[in-house]
Amino acid sequence: MESHERTKPLLEVLNGNRQATPPVWLMRQAGRYLPEYRAIRQGVAGFLDLCFTPELAAEVTLQPIRRFGFDGAILFSDILLVPHALGQRVTFDVGEGPRLDPVADAAAVGGLRSDLGIDRLAPVYETIRLVKPKLPEQVTFLGFCGAPWTVATYMVAGRGTDDQGPARRFAYRDPDGFAELIDLVTAASAEYLAGQLNAGVDAVQIFDSWSGVLPPDEFRRWCIEPVGRLIAAVRARIPDAKIIGFPRGAGVLLAGYAESVPVDAIGLDWTVDRRFVREHVPPTVAVQGNLDPLALLVGGAALDRSVDQVLASFADRPFIFNLGHGIHPETPIEHVERMLRRVRGAKN
Amino acid sequence: MESHERTKPLLEVLNGNRQATPPVWLMRQAGRYLPEYRAIRQGVAGFLDLCFTPELAAEVTLQPIRRFGFDGAILFSDILLVPHALGQRVTFDVGEGPRLDPVADAAAVGGLRSDLGIDRLAPVYETIRLVKPKLPEQVTFLGFCGAPWTVATYMVAGRGTDDQGPARRFAYRDPDGFAELIDLVTAASAEYLAGQLNAGVDAVQIFDSWSGVLPPDEFRRWCIEPVGRLIAAVRARIPDAKIIGFPRGAGVLLAGYAESVPVDAIGLDWTVDRRFVREHVPPTVAVQGNLDPLALLVGGAALDRSVDQVLASFADRPFIFNLGHGIHPETPIEHVERMLRRVRGAKN
Repeated sequence: MESHERTKPLLEVLNGNRQATPPVWLMRQAGRYLPEYRAIRQGVAGFLDLCFTPELAAEVTLQPIRRFGFDGAILFSDILLVPHALGQRVTFDVGEGPRLDPVADAAAVGGLRSDLGIDRLAPVYETIRLVKPKLPEQVTFLGFCGAPWTVATYMVAGRGTDDQGPARRFAYRDPDGFAELIDLVTAASAEYLAGQLNAGVDAVQIFDSWSGVLPPDEFRRWCIEPVGRLIAAVRARIPDAKIIGFPRGAGVLLAGYAESVPVDAIGLDWTVDRRFVREHVPPTVAVQGNLDPLALLVGGAALDRSVDQVLASFADRPFIFNLGHGIHPETPIEHVERMLRRVRGAKN
Repeated sequence: MESHERTKPLLEVLNGNRQATPPVWLMRQAGRYLPEYRAIRQGVAGFLDLCFTPELAAEVTLQPIRRFGFDGAILFSDILLVPHALGQRVTFDVGEGPRLDPVADAAAVGGLRSDLGIDRLAPVYETIRLVKPKLPEQVTFLGFCGAPWTVATYMVAGRGTDDQGPARRFAYRDPDGFAELIDLVTAASAEYLAGQLNAGVDAVQIFDSWSGVLPPDEFRRWCIEPVGRLIAAVRARIPDAKIIGFPRGAGVLLAGYAESVPVDAIGLDWTVDRRFVREHVPPTVAVQGNLDPLALLVGGAALDRSVDQVLASFADRPFIFNLGHGIHPETPIEHVERMLRRVRGAKN
């Protein structure tokens, strides 16, 4: 009998086993650059309707697998489903990004639910159950959530801003009140990730998209420590849970993250260089990344050169090929095909 | 006779000599958080009118020195005066930030002037000549320009964007055409910095506000190398020119910058941590920074703690106390006063 792991190269990498040809997936691979995604998106009123309609969310999750044969399928969803399930009003206006009723102080934190609204997340678990049997067996199925800090920055600002200043100000002004918000999101996210794993995903990724705006001590308190507690809470329920952490923009603080957060793989944004990773991420920890999405958008010689650099950088360790940030919506399909040929043709 | 350097603590640090009490200035210290600045700004039609009226630009340069007794006075100006002097249309709309007619390709680069329009920069040199005799002798007078990469990102995008994607795309699509733009800005900036030094500033800072969006190889080509050429060209004219480099957001790539760019001091943004600096910036190179502007905005215990952390981090080397980014326009005056008392009262 062949083991489960041996059939899924991406999961194999998360187990610490380097693959001769690195497995590939792309952040935001189920998204607007695909005509088949846009066709489905046109038929629903809002972005959240798509997230909450299991048949449709399952379909867009599967689309990039059918078209490109990626090694990983990532659940179509959004990190702001957690605030929504905590009772915060969340909307997505076309072309505007998310809008939330801001949680501006400790009193507003007290007004949130103290646990997840199960009814609000049931459709996500149903999506996972629909996708699971339709995935080729070699494809690793990934769930995800936002890191507590990143989710909290949206909850406080009510939107994405230049530097998520509102949450940083809240945390300086009232560290205890902000800690309550972080703890609430951490507990909810642990329940949510465990729910996704129980519903059938093989591994989960924790997106810390805004970890790059904090000074070192604040990074430790609001990023490293909560993600550590989140992972511990998930593994208290599911001991062998496989987890990818992605502290985007952590810069020099990536070293502390790698040292302190017990993830199976670390996602690297497109600015991270190989020398730093060699020095600061133990060779047994897998890495994932880190092609510049704009190199993929531009294509041609710039794409080939960038792909080769990424492959050369991480050829000697357990490695998952990905972008260093989500795929740009204007990316031509042919560029993705060209990238895949190059990654899979490369002997490394 | 007392030497020039012994009378100016900030310049002394740039000469590699640690000061018991670190000299202090703040990025954007001549700006909107000051009521006396807002009073003058109200009286002129546009931001550029203020930059180009020497009497007023001199006055706002001097305002924070009078009020706070900072150790450094920075010329009131803008990094986009270089594109303006190269013939690009530049405007500042209230509350909107800068707008330029985008230089979108190599043909548009060819349409720019090949040298600086002297008439357009004469008022800047005149401002310097007006400020110089009015500064207390212990105050170091700083000029500045944007780094070629950062200036080019605005020239290409025509504005500030989330990640300066347009310039990154131009550089991937047509590296040779983009190199022409970088070379043009580099030559113009060298002439401009030399002009400022000849008019009377003691040192200059090169702001690379957008160095954080590039992958390692592109960071080397578009940030490190052009800034290196810019510095060489300035020192070919003024051999002992004192220069501060500020590669904001460089993250892990700060190490390569410190290794390759011959600056007298490196500016650190608020995310850089002491351990990284200790390992990667030679102890003879001065550092400047790196208080989180939001800690200054919030004030109180958060401010005190953050000030102490910065002081403790860099007490053992030549160091200039500053923010890690420009002062927030809503910052209360009393917070600046509190910060100054703490920096100057500290024995380190």
